Order: sequence, then structure tokens, then C-alpha cells
Amino acid sequence: MTKGQSILEELEPLFNPKSVAVVGATNQWNKWGFSTFVSLLDGFRGKIYPVNNKEDVVLGHKAYRRVIEIPPEEPVDLAVFVIPAASIPGVMEDCIQKGVRAAVIISAGFAEIGAEGRKLQDRVLGIARQGPLHFIGPNCMGFWSAPPHLKSFMFPLPVRPGPLALVSQGGNVGGAVLQAGYLRGLGFQFYVSCGCTADIQVEDYIEYFSSVPEVKVILAYIEGLNDGQRFIEKVRRVTAQKPVIALKPGKTEAATKAITSHSGALSGSSEIFDSAIRKAGGIRVDSAEELLDVATAFITQPLPQGRNVAIITPGGSYGVISADACASLGLNVVPLSQDTLAEFNRIFPPRWSRGNPVDPAGDRNFIAYLQAPDLLLKLPEVDSMIFMGFDSFSRFASVFATLSQDLSQVFKKLTQSLSQMVPEGTLRGSLDDDSWMNGLIQAVVRQFFSLFGTSEPTEVQAFAEKLISLLRSGKTGPHLKRKFVEVLRSLKKDSLTETEDPFTQLFSPMLQALVLNWTETYRKPVVTTTFMGNTTSMTDMGYYAYPSAERAALVLAKLVEYREFLDRL
Amino acid sequence: MTKGQSILEELEPLFNPKSVAVVGATNQWNKWGFSTFVSLLDGFRGKIYPVNNKEDVVLGHKAYRRVIEIPPEEPVDLAVFVIPAASIPGVMEDCIQKGVRAAVIISAGFAEIGAEGRKLQDRVLGIARQGPLHFIGPNCMGFWSAPPHLKSFMFPLPVRPGPLALVSQGGNVGGAVLQAGYLRGLGFQFYVSCGCTADIQVEDYIEYFSSVPEVKVILAYIEGLNDGQRFIEKVRRVTAQKPVIALKPGKTEAATKAITSHSGALSGSSEIFDSAIRKAGGIRVDSAEELLDVATAFITQPLPQGRNVAIITPGGSYGVISADACASLGLNVVPLSQDTLAEFNRIFPPRWSRGNPVDPAGDRNFIAYLQAPDLLLKLPEVDSMIFMGFDSFSRFASVFATLSQDLSQVFKKLTQSLSQMVPEGTLRGSLDDDSWMNGLIQAVVRQFFSLFGTSEPTEVQAFAEKLISLLRSGKTGPHLKRKFVEVLRSLKKDSLTETEDPFTQLFSPMLQALVLNWTETYRKPVVTTTFMGNTTSMTDMGYYAYPSAERAALVLAKLVEYREFLDRL
Repeated sequence: MTKGQSILEELEPLFNPKSVAVVGATNQWNKWGFSTFVSLLDGFRGKIYPVNNKEDVVLGHKAYRRVIEIPPEEPVDLAVFVIPAASIPGVMEDCIQKGVRAAVIISAGFAEIGAEGRKLQDRVLGIARQGPLHFIGPNCMGFWSAPPHLKSFMFPLPVRPGPLALVSQGGNVGGAVLQAGYLRGLGFQFYVSCGCTADIQVEDYIEYFSSVPEVKVILAYIEGLNDGQRFIEKVRRVTAQKPVIALKPGKTEAATKAITSHSGALSGSSEIFDSAIRKAGGIRVDSAEELLDVATAFITQPLPQGRNVAIITPGGSYGVISADACASLGLNVVPLSQDTLAEFNRIFPPRWSRGNPVDPAGDRNFIAYLQAPDLLLKLPEVDSMIFMGFDSFSRFASVFATLSQDLSQVFKKLTQSLSQMVPEGTLRGSLDDDSWMNGLIQAVVRQFFSLFGTSEPTEVQAFAEKLISLLRSGKTGPHLKRKFVEVLRSLKKDSLTETEDPFTQLFSPMLQALVLNWTETYRKPVVTTTFMGNTTSMTDMGYYAYPSAERAALVLAKLVEYREFLDRL
Repeated sequence: MTKGQSILEELEPLFNPKSVAVVGATNQWNKWGFSTFVSLLDGFRGKIYPVNNKEDVVLGHKAYRRVIEIPPEEPVDLAVFVIPAASIPGVMEDCIQKGVRAAVIISAGFAEIGAEGRKLQDRVLGIARQGPLHFIGPNCMGFWSAPPHLKSFMFPLPVRPGPLALVSQGGNVGGAVLQAGYLRGLGFQFYVSCGCTADIQVEDYIEYFSSVPEVKVILAYIEGLNDGQRFIEKVRRVTAQKPVIALKPGKTEAATKAITSHSGALSGSSEIFDSAIRKAGGIRVDSAEELLDVATAFITQPLPQGRNVAIITPGGSYGVISADACASLGLNVVPLSQDTLAEFNRIFPPRWSRGNPVDPAGDRNFIAYLQAPDLLLKLPEVDSMIFMGFDSFSRFASVFATLSQDLSQVFKKLTQSLSQMVPEGTLRGSLDDDSWMNGLIQAVVRQFFSLFGTSEPTEVQAFAEKLISLLRSGKTGPHLKRKFVEVLRSLKKDSLTETEDPFTQLFSPMLQALVLNWTETYRKPVVTTTFMGNTTSMTDMGYYAYPSAERAALVLAKLVEYREFLDRL
């Protein structure tokens, strides 16, 4: 990057362009210039100029033969290159002449193919510096910037705005993270497939991302760094403010070889990178899945005060696996004091596990199970919690409902009675009156716990009241109300499908609100897992359950790692 | 187990009962006896007797006060116990008197709670031996046996018959594997949650499973063994015939402690177990996900001849990650000979990776990409292949279709023209005439590759013909035809939903057939991955794509491990 200007100013035309020229845009479906142009058409809030030396109109847009033929009164902020590598120097000269300040070079055939390609890359870089014009790539899949809703991908990918930002030296890995993130309900403020990083470096993107308030967590897939020291210095300043999570492959020689022919990066040894990322305060992960898992934790959980974890499990083998996972990642499965054991002895049957992991061993007093987290989270020696199989309660009902005609009839009646509790007017508009929602919570709680559980009616009532007061004091109340309205509306319209058991749909967000309120009340991470390893998406309440204890333990360990880094600052 | 009788004969009443008594069956929804009885009602092909000391009729079935009150002319093969632990010795005595030969004790409160519980467990075992009556448990979640469609679970779980058999010392882990397996399209012949293994041991189940021809792969979750030597001897005989895949937690002290309070097993050290399972020829995995991944590979892939793997990737970073994953698991990312490099130079552009992993670097001659596997699989030095991002071709089309009104119209016309190629009569019945399917394959291939790819028309034609001849000679033809008929029928009825792009639906099974034919032709594993890390189910053709290179590499490594074990025999 050039001196004098801040990175924010320099990269502004790239991430916030008002007009984009796509060099190589075409009507021919079998070219990347087609799918790249389609991607850009998918929502960009600015002017778009196709540039093609043969076609006059591309997908309804007037095309220009050259960038410099675009009228002078119409400036171009960003140029997208989807043409053969050899043509790029000439077009880059046009761009400089036109005053274009940013580009993304999708085309391959540069440093990654060897000495010849590196020469070409240096030539392009030399021309760009005359602008200066800063560019992404070459040899990349493009990028996404949420503010102008700019999808400049090689082919359209689904993405929504949100608190994450990703820079990836691999287009496929980056795309996979983006897609998996989308399916998980996560949003991205930025995504850059940075390819051969001829101009803008990985650490520049990270620095830029960190300067944008909407970005909360920064993710990176890194094959190699051009300047390790610069990376450490820049990223170190970022990590003091926002977490940076890095995926770096290349522990083996086979991978090192593959890296050279891919991004043209000189892959430092894995150990050197490990030490660099550690010095920079970054968090290293080992797979794309871990990258997203940890990112999800950083946007949904507070940082824990220490390594002590308490585990609540619906069954012994889950307890074994979660304890194993925690301990092998350096977390401390904290022993319980005599006082705490005594408290659990009062609420659980004698066969409970009598230690951490806490396992009520199939007890049907489900309210006790939901009281257990408070008994642990209130302890100063507990820094975080894994609460396993949390969605099991809500699914309990639906499992029966799908099986037997008789039973599903019972559910139908139950849910009809719930829906009748809500006056039409409430669903239409005024949500200010809490009384119907409180009544509804009481009804759902009462019906679930008396049908399926063995808790005393007074306990059930007390639990419902506690839940109501929690929701009133917490941030989740409005979300819950909205969700209730949604479910009840579908119920009234009879538009729920068979699989969308409305009982589960009402119960499940209540439980999510409960978990989120524990986190809020105790300011400690409460990481939940699904009952049977199913994957779920983050809900609009901001709740996410991991599919396994191993993955829950991993994210806790990474939260601790970042916390300890901050403590050392 | 008693001497004299074979395990097959001894466990016959357990896995093939003609009549079952459920002791503790009840109409009260909030008891395990209710959900257990509901689970049994879900398809069991035999007589069912609820036993309850208060209720006269349970869910429409006449109930008996005691097992011995069931009329003498109505024998009971299997008893299910869902009553408090303390009542079990008395009921067990009734069962012996009634001549019951098998039981499953779901109830907890035995060895897992300490000395007192262990005494009770020994007492129950002593009574059972008088029969002899063999029992599963205590402290378990029940079991599944496909031949009589017997679901004797604590609560209903979805399961379908199939080639897997699972024994689990953890009910939650077992249930999670069962559920994840179900969602993945896998079937189970047997599943046993074996709890405290007081009577029948883990190795007994494994031996029994192996004797059933329908069982192809045996899975086990093991916390501890009562007799390691017996385990090694029995399992060793099994693994010479069928693979046994074992998940064993407990590498840390925290897990060892949790095991004692869970299954009551004396968890040997992880190293001792590792050595035992190795001696027995079993394959150890580290998570429930790996258990299913490896099981899927064993039922869909042949065993590789050695450790040499070839990788084909749609992008460089995927190549890096897959090479890294393979090498770190001891697989050899085999270097390519000059001859092979020359062959690829002929079909790929100069920017291709020029090595293994083979990466055409965004080449749009997709037919070349589909020719590449043959160039590698034919080589004697290639033992197996990872073919990444395989579903990307078929998804290519649907991505566009969802975006733009114009483009989706084009697809609509395309698919309508495809559907018109098929005469009504063909869809109704006679599938013997191949000509319409051949025509359809040609049309789909031509349209896809001319719309999206840059291959020459003659290449496209040659590829379509090769595909047709492959399918005619292989096992996949009939499946493909059936799939085509299904899609075309929905198309004619206009009953496909928006997301079910019919073009993808026709193209995708063709590609699957192609992969399955490579496996069949070369007798080498061809493990594919999805493009963007999405999870899929096994298709009815028997095709499964893994969501990541790491998981593909792991299953290959385990196939090699088993192959090397067999070679040493």
C-alpha cells in the first residue's frame, strides 16, 4: 500500500464503489464473464458498465469496447477483470487513464503458474501503482461488500450482510465458508477471495475490516504471507479490539507443494505461521467448519473468565464424551463442592451422576434439569457451561406426534386450545399488552411439563413465573413475542405443515430465551448442543446449538484462548 | 453366556421374538413405560403384552398384573423392563417361571451408582441364569432388531433396516448415531444400547451381528470391557470377515471419571484399549461422526490396494487442504509420471496445477474434468481417488435458475423440451426400451455442456455416448432409469417445487452413475466431496458425497488400515 493515505481511504473505492465496469462481461453462458456479470446484477446499488470488445449489449446493459470509451462524465470506481491474463496489462493501462481506483482481477495465469506468470503479475502491479489503483487478486473468485450490496463473484453465491468479515487465499474454501455460513444463518459484512495477493495483502484486508464498526469478528484462510513481520504488526493492533480467527493448512509437505501451484504463496512452515499468528493474537483453527464454529461463538457468547467448565448432560455417554473433549483441549472439568452436590441431591434422584458432568440419569423431573444451570452458573469457580441435548425437550413432543394418530390428535387439541387463548386483535397489531403472552407461556409450560414430566404442579407454576419475569427483564422478550405471533398466525390460518409441530415451535423459542437469559444474567458462555447431533441454524434471537460436545468444547477452548491473550495485553 | 449353545441360538429369542411383554407399560404420558410402549407399537410384527400392576388396558391392549398372569398357552419370548430397579428381581423371577428367554432392562440404578447397585445387578443376573434368560442392560435405552421390526426403545427413534449393526455402551451416543444415520439414508439391521453389560457382553453382540448375512459393517461405542482378552479373541474372528469400527472415548482423566458414574465400566486406559482393538483387527475412530463416515465408506467403496491417492479438485485451496489431510493421515499423495502429466497437458489449459492434486484451475472444458479420473484410475500406482466438488456441475445450473427471471425461463423451456422427449406410455410402464433414456442422456449432456462449458460438440457427443455405454454395462442403469422416470413424472404433473430444479435432478444422478461406474470398473475407491461443504444423504443408487476433504481423507485412511490388517492375516 502507498504511504500517506490511511487504509480506509485507499480501499474506499474498492469496498464502496458507486460504479463498476466488468471487463469481459458477455452474453455467452459458457464464460466466466457471464456468471461474473450475473453475480454483479444480483443487487449492486450502483452503475454497471459491461466492457466487451465484440458485444454491444450485455444482458440488457449497453456495453463499451474499452474502459476508456465509457463517457468521461461517467466515472468508474471499480473494474472487474474476467479476461485472459495476457490482455490485462493493456486494460489496466486503460483503467489508469480512466481514473479507476480499484480492481478485482479474477483471471488466473499469474504467480501461481511460475516465473513467467510472476513477471506478468509484476508488470500489472507496476501499471496499477501509477494510479494508484489497488486490486484484489489476481487468480481469485472475487469479493462481496455489504454496504453497496456488491457481489463481484465468479458465479453467484448466496450471502447476507452481518457481523463477520472473511479474507481467503482460496476461492473454494472461502466460498464454502460463505455458503455454510449462509445456511447457518450468519451474515458477512465483507468477503474477499484474495488469490495471489499481488497488491493488497492479507493483513491489509484485516486492518480494513477492523476499521468498520459493523464487523465484529474477522476470519482468514491463509496459505502463505509475503511479509510475516508486517502481518504480525498489523494484526496485533486488530486483535486487541476484535478477534481474528485464522485457518492455515500446510502441515505436511504434500500441502506445501500444492500451495505453491495454487496461490503462488511461499508457504512458511506451519510452525512459523503458528508462532506468527500467536504473536499477533490470532486464533488458529484446523478446518473450515471450526472457522465457522468459533466465529459463531464469538458473536453469540461472552468471553469466559477462565478454564473451568461445568457440563450438564441428558445421558452418561454424552457426559463422557464432553468431559473427554474439554479435558483434551485444556479445559478444566471443575469438581463440584460438597454444598453443590447437596443442592443437586435435593433436586435429582439418587442415581444422578453425583459430579461434573451433571447427569440426572433419565429423571423425568425436567424442571430440575432446567434449574441445574443456575446452581452451577452462580458459582464463582464455574467460568462457562456446556448444556447438552438442549432441544430434546421441545422435540420430545413432536416425536410422539408423528407416530400415532391418537397422540397427534391430542396435540392438535392442545395447540388449538393455545391458539384460542389469543384474541384476533392481538395478532393483528398491538403487542404492548404482555398479559396474553404471559398466559401463553404459562399454558405451554403447564401442558408440556404435566404431559411429559413428573414435576409438582407448584414447581411448574413457579417455573412458568420465573420464565415470565426473566423474559420481561431480558432482551429476548420482544423476539419471543414476535415468534409466538408468527406461530399462532400460521396456526389460525392452518398453514403449518405436518412436520412443523406448533407445540414444539412455541416451546423451542422459550427454551432458547431461557439459555440466552442465563448468558446475559451471569455473563458466562453457555454453549448448548442438540440432542441427536442434528445441525441447526442460528435463530433470529441469536441462539445457536452445536451438533456435538466436541465442537462445543472446541469453541469454549478458543474463547478462553482469546480471553487469555487479552489478559496478557 | 452359557456353554453348549451357540450365540446364535442363545440370542435368537432376543433378536427374533414372536411375543413381547412390556413390564411397566402405562397410559401415563410422563413415564418411560409410556414412551417405551409407544416405541414397541411402532411396527413390531408379533404379540404385545403390557404388564402393569394397576392399569387394565394400556393404549388399547389388555394388560396383565404380572408376567405369570399371561395365559400359559401364550408364551412370551422377550420381556422389557421399565420399572424401578428394586422391583426387578421379583419380576425377573416371574419371567423365569413363565419361561421367558430374553429381556431388556431399561431401568437405571445398578452398577453405575456404586456398590449397592452392583449387588442388585448381580442378584438379577443370578436369577436370569436359572433360565437361562439373557438380557440387555441394565441402564440402557433399549434396542432395535430389523427382522421382526422390533423397536424396544425408551422413546421412539426413527430407524430403517439396512447393512449396519451397532452396539453402544451409551444410549445417547447410540441414539445420535442412529438418528444421524437415518438422516444420511443409512439402515441398521440391529442396534443395541447395552448399558451396564451385566450379562451379554459387547463382544457377544458383535459375534451375533457378524453371524447375520444382512450385516455388512459392525459399529461399536465402547466405554470399557469386562474381559479384554475375550473381546480380542471373539472380535478377531469377526474382523477377518467383516469390519468392526469402534468409538472409544476416555483419553483424559475427566472422561475416565465420567465413565465410572455412567456405565459402571472399569475404563481401561485409552492406550490399552487401542492396543486391544488393534489386536482384534478393529478400526478405532474418534467421534460419532467419524463412526458413520467410515461405516458409509465400507458399504459404498471397495478396499484400496495401498496408500497411494490421487486428488482431483475444482480449485487450488481445496487441493491444498485435501493434500494436507491425506498426508497427515499417512496416505501418499502420489507424484504423477511424465506420461501422465503429458496426458493432462493435452486436455487442460497451461495454467493447470501440473501435479497431484490435479486442478484444471477454472477450465470450462468440463468434459476434460470428467475424463481426468480415467487417466488416473487406470494407473497401477493409483490406489484410490478423492474427487472434490463433484456436485458442482449439477448445481451450476440451479444457482443461475434461482437468480434471474430470464434465466429461469430458459431452464423452464429446457426442461419442458426434455420432458416432451418422453412418450406418455414410457413413463407409465414399459421401461425395457432404452432408446428414450439414451436420447434423454444425450439431450441433458448436450444442453449442459453447450450452455455452460467450452467443450467441442464432437467431444460432447463422444462423452454422451461413453456415458450411455457405461450405464448399459454397469449396475447403475436401472437406478438411473427409475430416477429419470420419477423426475419426468413430477415434471409432467408440475409437482416439482421451485427449489427442485429438474435439470439438476436429471443431471445429478447421471454424474452419480458415472462415479459409481468408475468404482466398479477399476475396483478402486473413488471418494467424492460436495462443492461447498453441504451435507447430503446417500442416494438410492448407493452414492454418498462427503462434505469435506478432511472427512474424505479419513475414510480412505481407515479403508487402507483395514486392508492392511486383512493382508497380514
